[in-house]
Amino acid sequence: MVIIVRSDLNMGKGKIASQAAHAAVSLYASAAKSSSPHLKAWLFCGQPKVVLKVDSHAALTDLYDNAIAHKLNACAIYDAGRTQLHQGTLTAVGIGPDRVEDVDELTKSLKLL
Amino acid sequence: MVIIVRSDLNMGKGKIASQAAHAAVSLYASAAKSSSPHLKAWLFCGQPKVVLKVDSHAALTDLYDNAIAHKLNACAIYDAGRTQLHQGTLTAVGIGPDRVEDVDELTKSLKLL
Repeated sequence: MVIIVRSDLNMGKGKIASQAAHAAVSLYASAAKSSSPHLKAWLFCGQPKVVLKVDSHAALTDLYDNAIAHKLNACAIYDAGRTQLHQGTLTAVGIGPDRVEDVDELTKSLKLL
Repeated sequence: MVIIVRSDLNMGKGKIASQAAHAAVSLYASAAKSSSPHLKAWLFCGQPKVVLKVDSHAALTDLYDNAIAHKLNACAIYDAGRTQLHQGTLTAVGIGPDRVEDVDELTKSLKLL
């Protein structure tokens, strides 16, 4: 499972953590609902989560569209706008659990947050 | 859902985000497994997540023990030790979804991360 967060929004540590948590729950719930064959392996391996960054809305949108086009389990997280950001700001995208090679293909050029 | 992170470990933003994501998935999975009556309400309200901090292992352990003693849905997150921390370091505790009053009673004195 990979979670990609926007670095250009200058979110605080707690804000980033909550966006990552939203993405992780969303991915887990959709993988469980669709009985994803990758979910069990992921759970068995200690539920690895890698947090990466991009520096723009456009880069994050491209990543999400690509993940969907590749039929990967993916989610886009929009902030509710109660605190630091405007309502509906795209803050993070989650991808997986899926085949490591498939997730890597889309995310290997990105840096760790 | 409240996630409490240790600030004394000086974890990076990405590390904090992954620990929070671990906690959130763990809480969601256990709430779903036990058919928690609070899960549906939490999902309906946009899955609110609040990220707080404590400054020691002891404070986090106390919080977890207290949550369990109050029969709240809770999890303790230990790092796998592959990157920044020693294996088995307690990094975060998650509580909820549960009655807001019950979670607040244990966490109202803590500061936002």
